Amino acid sequence: MTDLAQLARDGDLRGLRQHLADRDVPGVVDELERWDAVTRAVAFRALPKDRALEVFEDLDPALQTELLEGLREEAVTALVRDLDPDDRAGLLDELPATVAQRLLSGLSPDERAMTTALLGHPADTAGRRMSPEVVALPEDALVGEALEHVRRHGRDAETLYVLPVIGPGRCVVGVVSLRRLLVTDDDVPVREVMSEPVLVHARDDQETAARVVRDHGAVAVPVVDDENRLLGLLTVDDAMRILEEEESEDLARTGASEPLSRPYLATSVLGLVRARVGWLFVLIVGATLTVNVLDAFEDTLAAVVALALFVPLLIGTGGNAGSQAATTVVRAMAVGDVRFADLTRVVGKEVATGFLLGSCLALLGFVPAALLVDVDIALVLCLALVAVCTLATTAGSLTPMVAKRLGVDPAVVSAPFITTFVDATGLVIYFLVAQAVLGL
Amino acid sequence: MTDLAQLARDGDLRGLRQHLADRDVPGVVDELERWDAVTRAVAFRALPKDRALEVFEDLDPALQTELLEGLREEAVTALVRDLDPDDRAGLLDELPATVAQRLLSGLSPDERAMTTALLGHPADTAGRRMSPEVVALPEDALVGEALEHVRRHGRDAETLYVLPVIGPGRCVVGVVSLRRLLVTDDDVPVREVMSEPVLVHARDDQETAARVVRDHGAVAVPVVDDENRLLGLLTVDDAMRILEEEESEDLARTGASEPLSRPYLATSVLGLVRARVGWLFVLIVGATLTVNVLDAFEDTLAAVVALALFVPLLIGTGGNAGSQAATTVVRAMAVGDVRFADLTRVVGKEVATGFLLGSCLALLGFVPAALLVDVDIALVLCLALVAVCTLATTAGSLTPMVAKRLGVDPAVVSAPFITTFVDATGLVIYFLVAQAVLGL
Repeated sequence: MTDLAQLARDGDLRGLRQHLADRDVPGVVDELERWDAVTRAVAFRALPKDRALEVFEDLDPALQTELLEGLREEAVTALVRDLDPDDRAGLLDELPATVAQRLLSGLSPDERAMTTALLGHPADTAGRRMSPEVVALPEDALVGEALEHVRRHGRDAETLYVLPVIGPGRCVVGVVSLRRLLVTDDDVPVREVMSEPVLVHARDDQETAARVVRDHGAVAVPVVDDENRLLGLLTVDDAMRILEEEESEDLARTGASEPLSRPYLATSVLGLVRARVGWLFVLIVGATLTVNVLDAFEDTLAAVVALALFVPLLIGTGGNAGSQAATTVVRAMAVGDVRFADLTRVVGKEVATGFLLGSCLALLGFVPAALLVDVDIALVLCLALVAVCTLATTAGSLTPMVAKRLGVDPAVVSAPFITTFVDATGLVIYFLVAQAVLGL
Repeated sequence: MTDLAQLARDGDLRGLRQHLADRDVPGVVDELERWDAVTRAVAFRALPKDRALEVFEDLDPALQTELLEGLREEAVTALVRDLDPDDRAGLLDELPATVAQRLLSGLSPDERAMTTALLGHPADTAGRRMSPEVVALPEDALVGEALEHVRRHGRDAETLYVLPVIGPGRCVVGVVSLRRLLVTDDDVPVREVMSEPVLVHARDDQETAARVVRDHGAVAVPVVDDENRLLGLLTVDDAMRILEEEESEDLARTGASEPLSRPYLATSVLGLVRARVGWLFVLIVGATLTVNVLDAFEDTLAAVVALALFVPLLIGTGGNAGSQAATTVVRAMAVGDVRFADLTRVVGKEVATGFLLGSCLALLGFVPAALLVDVDIALVLCLALVAVCTLATTAGSLTPMVAKRLGVDPAVVSAPFITTFVDATGLVIYFLVAQAVLGL
C-alpha cells in the first residue's frame, strides 16, 4: 500500500502506472481516496485517459474538485466534457460559480443545455440525479421498429434496458423493457407489450425516488415533470449510490455526528472535530440536567451514599434500552415498515417490551444487589430498573416518530438524545422511588 | 388503513380485492406486512393469481412460510413451482425439511435440479443468491448471431442485460452487455466487443458479492466456481436486497439488539424482548464494573460529595464521544474506506480528535462549573473530560477494527460496548484526577 505514496513522492510515473494498471476501476478509486491530495493528484495524472474518466466519475465530489485544481485548463475541459450529464451537474455544483460557468461555456450547445437543465432542479431531488439521455419509443411503433430505433439511437444513452413509451407531448404512457422487446416477435405493436409505468417526479426527494427503484427491482425508472412529460431516467446504479449516501448520513447522525463530506482517510483531524463538536456540545448542555437533578436530591444522596453506587449502572441500562428501541424504530421507518399512523401500535409494543425487559433485569439483579448492599436498596434499584426501561423504550420509539412528523431527521434525535433525556428523568425516578421505599 | 383488517374480518373478498387492486406490488407487500397473520392470509387469497406470485416473491421469508401453511396443497405447489429458482431456494430453506422435500418432489426435473443445486451452496454465499437461468454466448459468435441466440433463448432468464461469454468447459472468458451488442454491427465478432469479466465466486460472502455489483455499477455479475465455470448471475436487484438486509443487521447490532426475523409490526412483543434481552443483560453485567469502581472510591466520594454531581455528565459525554468515533469508523470499514492495515493512521487521527474535542468542552465548561461548585472541582472535571474524550475516541476506533480482524462483526462491539467500557474506565480516571488535584 505504502508503495503508492512512495512512488508518487519519487515522481515515478511509470511505476505508478504499473501499480494502478493491476487494479480495476473501483480498486483505483479506493486507492486514491486513501491518500493525501498530492499523491492523489500525481497518481491520477498517471492514469491512461479512458481510465481516468471512469475513475473520476466514481470519485467523491469533494475530491473531484480538488483534483481539477491541479490539472491544466485543457485537461479539465476535456474531463468535464466527457462526463455523463448527471455526474457533470453534481461536480459543477461543488465548484465555485465562476469556475462552473467557465467550464459550462466550454461544452457543446447540446451538452450545455442538458447540464443546465439538470442544474435547474434543486439538489437532492430525482431531477438532479437522473440521466437526461434517454431513448424513448413512440406508442404506435411495432417491436421490430422499436428495436431498430434502439440500435440506431442507443449509442449515447446511459441505459437502454428500460424504454419509456411516449404519446403526444412526450407524455409517458407506458414502459417496456428491452428484454421484453427482444423475446417478442417483430410485428407485435409495442403498445401490446408495454406495462403500466412506475414513475418518479423530478421534484421527488432523491431518497424516495431511489427507494422506488429498489422496491420495484427496476433497472431504471422514468423521471417526469408535473404534466407527466418524460425528462430522464433514474438508473439503478445511481439509486444504489444515493441510498449508500443516505445510509451513511443516517448512521453518522445515529452516532451524533454530522456526515463527513469526504472519505474517512481523506478527512483531516479538524474535519473530524468539526463534524462532532457541535453535537457533543449540545449533548453536554443537555447532560447538565443530571447535575441539577443530583443537586436537588443531594440530601437523599448524603443520607444513603450507597445509592450513588448504582447511578451509572441504572442510567447506562436506560440508555441501552432506549438505543435498542430507537435504532429498531428508526430502521423500521426508514424501510417503510412503520408510518406515523402506527404511533399507538408502536408505542404500545414498546411500553410492554420495556416493562418486560426491566422486569427480567430486576428479577436477575435483585439477589446480587441485596447481597452487595441491602434488601431495601436492592428493591429501590429493581423498581427503578423497571420504570427506567419502560420510560426508555417509550421515549426511544416515540421521539423518532414524532421527530419525523415534525420534519426533523429521526436519526438526529435518536440514541444519544434519548440517552441524555433518559439519564435525567431516570435519576428523578430513582430518587423518588428511594424516598418512598426508604421513607426519607 | 384499518379497513383492510375490517374487510378481512368480515370475509369481504370483493372489498379486499378492490382495496388491493389500487396498489402496486410493493404497496400490497407493505400492507400485508403490517397486519396480523389471519388478515394477511385472507388478503393474500383475495389476490389474482399473477399478482399473488409477484407479491409472494417480495414478502419476508418468515411470512412466506406462514402464508403457505394456510393454503391448500395444490395452491402451494403451484406457487412454489412459479417462483424464480433463487427465491424458491430461500423459501425452502425456511421450511421444515419434510415439507421442503415434498415441495421439491412436485417440481419438474429441470426446476428441481436448479433448486437443489442452489441449496447445495451454503446460506449467505453468492452461490445461494444467484439466478441459475443464464443466457451465455459462445466466444466465436458474431454479434448478429448472439442477438438471435438471446432472442431465442431469453424467455426464462432472469436478466439478459449482462451476457457472459464462455469458452471450453463453460469457463467465463468475457462479458458483454446487451446494450453493447445492440449498438454494434451484426458482423462484428463478439470477442471484439466483450470486456474483461468482473466475477464473483459462488462461495464468496453474499455481502462482499453484492458490493462488487454496486461498486461496478453493474446490472449483474457472473458467478463462477473454482475453475471459473459459469454457474449463474447475481443481479442488481438481489444485490440491493442483500445490502438492505445487511444494513438492517448492522444497524440493529449498533443499537445492541439482534436483528428482527420479520418486519417490525409483524413481530410480537415477546419477539422484541427476545431480540434485546440478551444484549441488555450482557451490558448490565459489564456495567457492574462501575459499581465496583464507585465502591473502591467511596472514601473520596464521601469526602467531596460534589464530585458525584458530575458523574452522569462525565460518563455520558465519554459515551457520546465513543459512539461518534465508533459509528464513523464502522461505516468507513463497511464501505471499504478503511482496512485493518490503516489501524495506526485511524487511531492516530482519533486520539488527536478526542483530545481536541475534550479540550473544546473543557474550555467551554470551566467557568460555568467553577461558578456552580468551585475552581478545584471544575479543574478536576475539565481534566477528566479531556482524558475521557481521548480514551473514548481511541476505544471507539480501535475496538471495531480489532473486532473485525478477529472475525467478530464490528457493529456488535460498537457504541453500547464502548460506552460501558468508557463508563468504568472514565470513573477511574475521574477519581484519580480528583485525588491528585484535591490532594486526597
